[in-house]
This record gives sequence, structure tokens and C-alpha cells, in this order.
Amino acid sequence: MGKGLFITFEGADGCGKTTQMKLLAQYLEQQGYDVVLTREPGGKGLGEKVREILLNYDGVVSDRCESFLFLADRAQNIDIIVNPAVNAGKIVLCDRHTDSTVAYQGYGRGLDIERINKLNYIATNGRKPDLTFVFDIDTETSMKRVGKEKDRMESAGLEFHNRVRYGYLEIARQEPERIKVIDASKSIEEIHKEVLNQLAKKFIQEF
Amino acid sequence: MGKGLFITFEGADGCGKTTQMKLLAQYLEQQGYDVVLTREPGGKGLGEKVREILLNYDGVVSDRCESFLFLADRAQNIDIIVNPAVNAGKIVLCDRHTDSTVAYQGYGRGLDIERINKLNYIATNGRKPDLTFVFDIDTETSMKRVGKEKDRMESAGLEFHNRVRYGYLEIARQEPERIKVIDASKSIEEIHKEVLNQLAKKFIQEF
Repeated sequence: MGKGLFITFEGADGCGKTTQMKLLAQYLEQQGYDVVLTREPGGKGLGEKVREILLNYDGVVSDRCESFLFLADRAQNIDIIVNPAVNAGKIVLCDRHTDSTVAYQGYGRGLDIERINKLNYIATNGRKPDLTFVFDIDTETSMKRVGKEKDRMESAGLEFHNRVRYGYLEIARQEPERIKVIDASKSIEEIHKEVLNQLAKKFIQEF
Repeated sequence: MGKGLFITFEGADGCGKTTQMKLLAQYLEQQGYDVVLTREPGGKGLGEKVREILLNYDGVVSDRCESFLFLADRAQNIDIIVNPAVNAGKIVLCDRHTDSTVAYQGYGRGLDIERINKLNYIATNGRKPDLTFVFDIDTETSMKRVGKEKDRMESAGLEFHNRVRYGYLEIARQEPERIKVIDASKSIEEIHKEVLNQLAKKFIQEF
């Protein structure tokens, strides 16, 4: 594998991406690879402080302030965690990244996608994931999996999450080389096999 | 005065802007105006948390992360402190704002000014100060006033601060209606009088 890899895990809450990321990390470590796990918001260090503000601040946080905090966390994640590790030949697995912002803020909330892309570009300094898994699942199933969030399954919530799902599929359609959509309605083991399968295809293509 | 006002105070550290802001606040309150004081980074609430990260985080903060944290703080300051107060007819005095970013990051560090302007526009949602005071002073004098910072007066530091000073004067030249340059080498009382003088001119012009 020679050089490092930057792989992101995307999809709705409850789609199983965090579970799959951990399974892939275990697999890769067993194969002898050096693996680094991170997430957005809230990689190690400063990211945790920003995540704490985003999740626990008890006052009003303006929408634009929130967006910039996410971008600050992203810039820090790329500069301090992702780039040094990838450049050292490690495999970085990241739970949510730029596509989350496009899917949730853009398709979900209706913010300007071109502007989001520009801000993402600045925050990442142009670094793109080598591979992105989108775990696709119908909204009602993912909502059920999250469980305690059931209260938010009112009509508007369902529509919002359907728009996010559509957004992910639309981004994947635009970047088929980078983004692989995986059917997340299957069992954990089946999904894990599909992840390994897609990763192997990528290897054969590029290495 | 009917409607509110948003006035920003800019200039090098040690130029006396914070002192002048407080003197103006006292004066305006004595005249019966409702005055709100804020600052960037670090207005009340969330701003203080972001300021704490910016000033006290003991790990490495990437440059781009820092820029986005400043913008997050700015967006929050505008949305949660400045706009509601101005819309309620109050006078908001703000210690540093968008022009600091242009002068320090743009002219001082050489970052792309057009990009900074775009990001400032997003962070402020297009809200501009009604009036900005730039307290201009030669770099050696401001450095002496700051005192404990003398160690940083090495050649590169002096050049950096000269570029910042030039930047402020250049922005003021481009927006003479909004930005008033005040000679900050004079006494506190003389500078205060000049601030009142400029404010009165603005009133007569616009109110």
C-alpha cells in the first residue's frame, strides 16, 4: 500500500458507519497497517473542545457561528491529524467529513451548496478523501435504529432526513470514483464484507 | 439618534483603542444613550469560550483553524450581540472587528485579502459598521506602550506591525465615509475630543 490513505464514513445517524469504521480499523490493524481514527466534529485535542461547545453550550449559537465552528474543527482535523498521518503512510479513517456538511446543511437545510463547497475547500486546503463510504438506508429504519430519537420522527423530521439521504446519493452520483454507496440495510457482517470488497477494488485500481 | 449604531475601534495593540472605547461609552451613557460594549474575539457567552480556545489552548492550532474560530466568534457576535442591540436602538461599541482581520491576516501575514473579505462578508451577513475609528500610531510608540511585548520588537516583528499599520491606512483610504483615522500619538483627552468630534460630524451628516 506504500502511501497513506484517507477514508471517510458518511451517512445518516443510525446507518452503522461508526460500527463499520471500527470493524475496518480492526481488520486493517490485523493486516499490519497503521490506522488512525478520527471524527468530525471532535478529533483529539482542540477538536474535542470545539465539539464540547457545539454539543453542550447552553446559550444560543447562531447558525453561521455553528457552521464556522464545524469548519474550524475540520481545518484542525486535516492539518493536525489527517495530513501528518497520511503523509507518514498511515490509513486515516474519519467518521463524517465534508460530505456531511453538503448533505445536512446543503440538501437538508437548503443552504447554498456552492458556498458550502468553497468553504469546505478552504477548510481542507483542497485535500479530498481517497475513498468515501456512504451507508445508505431508508430513513424510517435509521430512525428506528437510533431509537431514543424517535420523538423527532414527526413529518418535518422525516422529510429533512429524506432530503439528506437524497443529498448523499446525489453527491455519490457526481463523484462515483471517490464515493461508494453501500446498502446499510444488510447485516453488520455483510456490510463489513462489502466495505472490504470496495476497498480491495480501490487497491487493485490504484496500487 | 432614533436608530441604533454600530461603531468599531481598530488599530495596533497599544494604540489606546480600548481606553477610547470606554471613554466614549461613559460619555454616551451620560448623554442618556443605551450603550453595549463587545469585542472580537470574545464577546459575552460563547465568544468567551472561543476566545479561551484561541488564547489558552496549549496544543498546536492550525492557521486555518484559527481563522475559522475568529469567524465563528464574529458571526456569533453579530447575530447574538450586535444586531439585536442595534435593532433595539442601542449604540454598540466593538473592540476590533473585520478590519483587524484584513490588516493583520491580509496586510500583515500576506493572506489573500479578497478571500478574507468574502469570509468576513459571510461571517457578518453583510452587516457593516456605521463608523470605524482607526487609531494610528507609529509602530515603535505602540510597541513601547504595550511594554511587556518589547521582546517581540525584533526586526521581523517591527516589519510585520508596519505592514499592519499600512494596511489600516489603506483600508481607511478605500472607505473614507466609514473609517476615520485618528492620530493616536496625542494625549488621551485630545484623542477623546477628536472621537467626539468625528462622531458629531457623522451625526450631522446622517441624522
